[in-house]
Amino acid sequence: MELAQYIIINNSLGMDKGKAVAQGSHASVSVLDKVDKATVETWKQNGMKKIVLKVASTNELVELFQSAKDAGLPCALITDAGKTQIASGSKTAFACGPIDEEDAAKYFSELKLL
Amino acid sequence: MELAQYIIINNSLGMDKGKAVAQGSHASVSVLDKVDKATVETWKQNGMKKIVLKVASTNELVELFQSAKDAGLPCALITDAGKTQIASGSKTAFACGPIDEEDAAKYFSELKLL
Repeated sequence: MELAQYIIINNSLGMDKGKAVAQGSHASVSVLDKVDKATVETWKQNGMKKIVLKVASTNELVELFQSAKDAGLPCALITDAGKTQIASGSKTAFACGPIDEEDAAKYFSELKLL
Repeated sequence: MELAQYIIINNSLGMDKGKAVAQGSHASVSVLDKVDKATVETWKQNGMKKIVLKVASTNELVELFQSAKDAGLPCALITDAGKTQIASGSKTAFACGPIDEEDAAKYFSELKLL
């Protein structure tokens, strides 16, 4: 078993690199509260593998988030406060895990790297 | 007092957006272990403000990290394992805080947004 955290960026918003880093980090930090501490510790001690992916629309982001969440995977969706660059309420990113990469494949294997 | 977390990206490595998100998130997550829990909770409940900045060289990254760390600020420096894109051992990013923005100004106010 290899643990990875998946960070999925909404590529339809045209966020620049700094904005994407901020939103991806929001998601990465937020989801950790939904993962058991032992799993988080194991993942941290093994290099904290993160896989950063993209989707082409807000619908795709929300649907994928909902599917993974409904399946019981630990997920956190980020809604931007809209103070910079993009409209308030925009769904910018979500993160899932750390989870076993095999369990993640069903949801994320079709997505492209950001 | 307003809390913010600072994420500083080493812009000399030519990381693409996905790589920058991964390295920035590594830093963001790592430094939280060095901040007291009450401060982290307050910060999370107030929008988890993150400020993403850049430096132009590895030397600048390491020197700034060391200065902030020597002053007692909670900081985490990320060294990449080099599995993708960049050479193993590259210093990619560091994060500091959440800390009071006033305390941070001395170290980070001269830097440009990524």
